[in-house]
Amino acid sequence: PAVVAGVGSAADDPADDAADDVLDDIAQMHLFRRGVSGEDDPGAAEEGVAPRPPRPELLQIHNSFILAETRDGVIIVDQHAAHERVLFERIVASFERGGAEGQRLLFPIAIRLTKPEVELIESILEPLAALGFEISPFGTDAILVQAVPSPHRYFDAEKCVREMLHELTHGSDLMNSARNQNERVAMSFACKAAIRAGHDLSNDEMQELFDQLFATELPYHDIHGRPTVVRLGLGELRKKFGRT
Amino acid sequence: PAVVAGVGSAADDPADDAADDVLDDIAQMHLFRRGVSGEDDPGAAEEGVAPRPPRPELLQIHNSFILAETRDGVIIVDQHAAHERVLFERIVASFERGGAEGQRLLFPIAIRLTKPEVELIESILEPLAALGFEISPFGTDAILVQAVPSPHRYFDAEKCVREMLHELTHGSDLMNSARNQNERVAMSFACKAAIRAGHDLSNDEMQELFDQLFATELPYHDIHGRPTVVRLGLGELRKKFGRT
Repeated sequence: PAVVAGVGSAADDPADDAADDVLDDIAQMHLFRRGVSGEDDPGAAEEGVAPRPPRPELLQIHNSFILAETRDGVIIVDQHAAHERVLFERIVASFERGGAEGQRLLFPIAIRLTKPEVELIESILEPLAALGFEISPFGTDAILVQAVPSPHRYFDAEKCVREMLHELTHGSDLMNSARNQNERVAMSFACKAAIRAGHDLSNDEMQELFDQLFATELPYHDIHGRPTVVRLGLGELRKKFGRT
Repeated sequence: PAVVAGVGSAADDPADDAADDVLDDIAQMHLFRRGVSGEDDPGAAEEGVAPRPPRPELLQIHNSFILAETRDGVIIVDQHAAHERVLFERIVASFERGGAEGQRLLFPIAIRLTKPEVELIESILEPLAALGFEISPFGTDAILVQAVPSPHRYFDAEKCVREMLHELTHGSDLMNSARNQNERVAMSFACKAAIRAGHDLSNDEMQELFDQLFATELPYHDIHGRPTVVRLGLGELRKKFGRT
């Protein structure tokens, strides 16, 4: 299956036509909610700033999918796929900028590694640092993690490092689709660090994920090429109810 | 198409197997929301009353459909179809009890009618009274409406009476499916008085509609035989996202 990896690499994806429609929907999303006039934020109008549109109501289902009304029906967002896309594009941008700041840990984490893992990690210390990891070798079979990125409140740094190292040393379809080591690290991190299915999100967190997803260059696919967004049109809905 | 009209008349409807599953879902719906332990209502436990389960979050889409998480995925409820079912069963029960109280109007409504409508209305004053309408002839070509039922806050009594009289004098598939004049009146009222698509419901109103719908005998079809509830299973959702 085609893997939508690099930013802009899938410009001719046929799914993008449908995707454009969804983007229209998102742009229009706010217009169809209650209290559209911008009265929520009267100060902004006075200052000559465009009033911020009210945000759509979101419903999280099974701590995995987020539903929202659009102009044309309902969209369903896969929270893990969406966050993977957000993280991947953030990492690519961060590589270009020269790296992101991590959070220093009060108590560094020591992680024991296999020999291939130790060899690998010495070769990717730079991209890991650009992600916000501060890692140093610790003897011959361990590392010390002293700072970590913080993509969301459920993030487990040790688990993420272990899963990334496993994927990078053992390979995967995702790793095969990357063009170079930096992209492998970026993809592996995006995949392992993204919020999972099963995590309860607050309304603000869901809103933020929506804002970030629809600000990416390729909002409609995760880095595995799977959809991040599925739509259910009003026509389809009406048909399900025998209203044709 | 088969019309699911009378209470209990569709016991052998093949859709009922799926419907039973949905009923299971509804019964279990609360178990999968946050804060399941009943801590919301600690007093109840002390008094030996079963704690009231927290209510599911509901999302209204296009002022027409209501979405909710269930044990097995998502259900989508058609608000008009659902309310039609609720009203129909309430009317049938009310006929058995001998009628419902209407709301007396401060200013009676005079409605001009055609000759067939006047003839008809004189023959259905009794079931109309049982619905909560207090109607008296007013000259030879009009009626005076002095009390009306109040099924919801958007209810337009005059429009409802006009539409019912039109359907009852001109006939319809729905009218053909009724077994007697009382059932025709009940069906026509349920259809015309139920909340429409396009009406914004508050969270409490949605919750009430859910409670009432799933307390009916035939919650899964409106009186036209159309579905009131459509489900989208987790498996189906995952498949849409390429997660198989």
